Amino acid sequence: MLSIRVNAGIAELAKSERFAAAEPDMVEAIVEGVGQFAAGEFAPLNRVGDLEGAKLENGVVRLPNGFAEAYDQYVEQGWNAIASPAEFGGQGLPFTLACNVLENLGTANMAFNLLPMLSVGAIEAIEHHGSEAQQSRYLPKLVSGEWSGTMNLTEPQAGSDVGALRSTAVPITEGEHAGKYRVRGQKIYITWGDHELAKNIIHLVLARTPDAPEGSRGISLFLVPKYHVHDDASLGPRNDLRPVSLEHKLGIHASPTCVMSYGDNDECIGELVGAENRGLVAMFTMMNNARINVGNQGVQIGERATQQALHYARDRIQSARAGSPDKSPVAILEHPDVRRMLLRMKALTEGARALLYYTAGQVDRGTIGDEAAKARGEILTPMIKAWGTDIGIEIASIGVQVHGGMGFVEETGAAQHYRDARIAPIYEGTNGIQAADLVTRKLGLEDGQALIGLLEDIARDAADEPKLFALAGDCAAIARWMREEASLDDRLAGSVPFTTMCAVAVAGWQMLQQLRAVAAGASPALAETKPVTARFFLDRIVPEASGLKASAIAGSDSLYALPADKLIA
Amino acid sequence: MLSIRVNAGIAELAKSERFAAAEPDMVEAIVEGVGQFAAGEFAPLNRVGDLEGAKLENGVVRLPNGFAEAYDQYVEQGWNAIASPAEFGGQGLPFTLACNVLENLGTANMAFNLLPMLSVGAIEAIEHHGSEAQQSRYLPKLVSGEWSGTMNLTEPQAGSDVGALRSTAVPITEGEHAGKYRVRGQKIYITWGDHELAKNIIHLVLARTPDAPEGSRGISLFLVPKYHVHDDASLGPRNDLRPVSLEHKLGIHASPTCVMSYGDNDECIGELVGAENRGLVAMFTMMNNARINVGNQGVQIGERATQQALHYARDRIQSARAGSPDKSPVAILEHPDVRRMLLRMKALTEGARALLYYTAGQVDRGTIGDEAAKARGEILTPMIKAWGTDIGIEIASIGVQVHGGMGFVEETGAAQHYRDARIAPIYEGTNGIQAADLVTRKLGLEDGQALIGLLEDIARDAADEPKLFALAGDCAAIARWMREEASLDDRLAGSVPFTTMCAVAVAGWQMLQQLRAVAAGASPALAETKPVTARFFLDRIVPEASGLKASAIAGSDSLYALPADKLIA
Repeated sequence: MLSIRVNAGIAELAKSERFAAAEPDMVEAIVEGVGQFAAGEFAPLNRVGDLEGAKLENGVVRLPNGFAEAYDQYVEQGWNAIASPAEFGGQGLPFTLACNVLENLGTANMAFNLLPMLSVGAIEAIEHHGSEAQQSRYLPKLVSGEWSGTMNLTEPQAGSDVGALRSTAVPITEGEHAGKYRVRGQKIYITWGDHELAKNIIHLVLARTPDAPEGSRGISLFLVPKYHVHDDASLGPRNDLRPVSLEHKLGIHASPTCVMSYGDNDECIGELVGAENRGLVAMFTMMNNARINVGNQGVQIGERATQQALHYARDRIQSARAGSPDKSPVAILEHPDVRRMLLRMKALTEGARALLYYTAGQVDRGTIGDEAAKARGEILTPMIKAWGTDIGIEIASIGVQVHGGMGFVEETGAAQHYRDARIAPIYEGTNGIQAADLVTRKLGLEDGQALIGLLEDIARDAADEPKLFALAGDCAAIARWMREEASLDDRLAGSVPFTTMCAVAVAGWQMLQQLRAVAAGASPALAETKPVTARFFLDRIVPEASGLKASAIAGSDSLYALPADKLIA
Repeated sequence: MLSIRVNAGIAELAKSERFAAAEPDMVEAIVEGVGQFAAGEFAPLNRVGDLEGAKLENGVVRLPNGFAEAYDQYVEQGWNAIASPAEFGGQGLPFTLACNVLENLGTANMAFNLLPMLSVGAIEAIEHHGSEAQQSRYLPKLVSGEWSGTMNLTEPQAGSDVGALRSTAVPITEGEHAGKYRVRGQKIYITWGDHELAKNIIHLVLARTPDAPEGSRGISLFLVPKYHVHDDASLGPRNDLRPVSLEHKLGIHASPTCVMSYGDNDECIGELVGAENRGLVAMFTMMNNARINVGNQGVQIGERATQQALHYARDRIQSARAGSPDKSPVAILEHPDVRRMLLRMKALTEGARALLYYTAGQVDRGTIGDEAAKARGEILTPMIKAWGTDIGIEIASIGVQVHGGMGFVEETGAAQHYRDARIAPIYEGTNGIQAADLVTRKLGLEDGQALIGLLEDIARDAADEPKLFALAGDCAAIARWMREEASLDDRLAGSVPFTTMCAVAVAGWQMLQQLRAVAAGASPALAETKPVTARFFLDRIVPEASGLKASAIAGSDSLYALPADKLIA
């Protein structure tokens, strides 16, 4: 709640006409309600989802018992509709609150939560790029959650380089499907690509029309339903698409990651969304918030791993306190280094959450005409995606460590977080892609002022926080160096450490805002705890990020000093 | 080889009578021979070991096909005997070379390599603490590898706190086993606790005699063979011990981690090793080198993950070079951030290897009477154990990242390294325990000069390396603060970041030695590559460690600002 208020600034958002519904009672009802729902329905399925996972049986994807019922409840209670447009049955609330819904669901069950997450992406693509007919036909049931959605980008030869994809879509000129397209191709890594939880699945598929230009400028977006949809939105026969296989993954076992085949019998019918050859633009619309939602997953796994480690460390009795005259064994959270680990987990999670909601708040302001906030949201998106997911792994790994030998045994559950967390730095654009985005496109926004202005805001606000002040100053100096002196290769060579530095600076700043708000009485319940975690972040985590400066400005020459064959030898 | 020569100083070791056999031809034969053996016999079993794992069937531990044959070859070729005493059939070579054997075997197959690793521990315990009769009865077949050995410390309530164990050993006063003990208890996390690869298994078990004092001063060490051994070393009937179950672990699936039960029928017979109530001393003898060997596992997983990532990055074609006029896609290792990841993996691995062999060389010097080297070896042991295993995880995680989506799919093998690596910071004393050892017992060695003298040596040698000079100076300043001002809690609160800083300082120093040796012509084959990885380490990784200073000296007060219940709430 503190993040929603202090970092996202929900009260100010609610003053706008667009978000007037987000008044305090509503916000509280959502935060409490989704917390209860997630704990009651999604959380109990986390372990069985990991153990049994999704299975492909006779062409049908099966989930463990309980998933279908929990999803029905999810739809029935209306959690899918928080931020979607009211005209299609949504509640039209801020993205900030949708983030909170996802945060709760994903903390309970990261793999399951990918189903709503992907559906949101499909909704946004159709909302922004679909025709009125498409919107009225597909959006109501996607918004309610009765149907789910997927994103189909990747092909074996086209991963980070989406422009290399080869799936095709040929216009149909006559017959029942005239005006539509015959889609053909194989897509990989399709999250929740098939399942029986929703009554229909709306696949958004990138493909090329026959005379499209090569590369990323020749890609169009198609809407390909699992079941055809009649004009009255009732379901028709099955479309010609199928899950070929499921990946055997390190984690998120309950999320069916499908290889999807479209048009095996040349009868796969899709509709163009938006203009021909403008598919990537549409895809990036939906990927932008999706990147924030993946950063959110770092917060989720961090929260869950931290809670689990805290409870274990409270219950596990081992060794007396070093140097204590009392030789009786104590709970391990009494030992200094275990405390350090637990506070590090808490501080990193809270810092990432502060960054997440600050980002969400800027995105929301951007949707109501605040252009500066819109640019800031774009600046922050690669930060929360990259750093949020990096610390998800770090926290999950510390969580295993707190458990000692028990952490390495799967029954404890700590290891699942360590496995689940590992995907988040990879999908929705690897963290390297995020960092490249920051030091190329985002660095140039508003002639550099979007980023540098943010760092100056931090420095101005941190006059009495010398470590944060130093970090923000370092970030600004590096940003100027990147803008004015560094080659593209030099910028890319330093992009990942620079992104980490910036993310920690913003997170530290937003933790400082929380600290000040609590000191001013904003949340009596956090009066004792917030100062401890905020200071841990500002005093210990912020200076670590300053240690990355040398890497950020080291340049690219030394990376290319060896030819590829010598690198490998 | 460069590490063996430059960091361990093998040529100087070979000048001693004790290690005279370690002349250059022998060293080369071992390094080459074990490399070939590991690649040919152990490496092909790594994936099947992960997939099928060890299984307990009708009370017998089964390994996948091929493990028994590979182990037979290992014994036949004499790899188990490198560093063991010549009088028991070993080759009496330096520990440094045993490290190299383990490094090669573990790079090929981390889980399998735990079998020899644990046997070495048993050999060392019997060699240093066993009676002559025990040595002549048990050592020859342990040294050859025909029999294997285990360490039995942990019980459910006694993990890091070994003193809390409850297994018992009651003296037998009459009958066939008079003079021996009846052992009873359950032990957990027993690595390679049972299997059929060796003809007998010699369990070293910590237990309490009836009137032993409480805590760690009442623990004795017992030798408990799986099959009784006659005076002529032939095998007798089965002893009363058995594997109860195997743990279902995150990684190292081919290593059977057993719950072992001793004395279900009160017929488990063991022999006392060393004096009664002196079991912990004996156990620590064998744990000291075991800790170095676990640090070695970080190097192993780092090397394997790096090799795999390099090959993938060379073969995976994706996207054109950013900013290049040539728009054809290139191997991903041509992209700046992928290069950075690969060089980071290489530099961390090489740095940890340099620290490993420097440590091993000091240990070897210590065994031939060099007391300063002995103390330095003790100082370095927690560093290589803790930091070596931390970077093992980091490298494996970067390896997954380099693979992108393919890294998260188990078939690639990158994910196995990420899973396997996670155990090493936990066993043989968690990394927190290592750091506590450094800032308590080790910090006080030679009145503080053992550690501070090492850091001064680094600073003196790094006059023209400002970043390393600064790090060594920071470490020395923190060490003095810990000695002179800090409370025990303050030291423990900063122990882990301090250990990392010291380890990076020593590793950087040893990389500098390699750099200088190569510049002086020591290894023409490395003339191009070593400067690149050494500079990466010195220019980028060393300053990161300086960023930990604030955490190392932050003290413990803030860790205890919250009572336990507020920490969890």
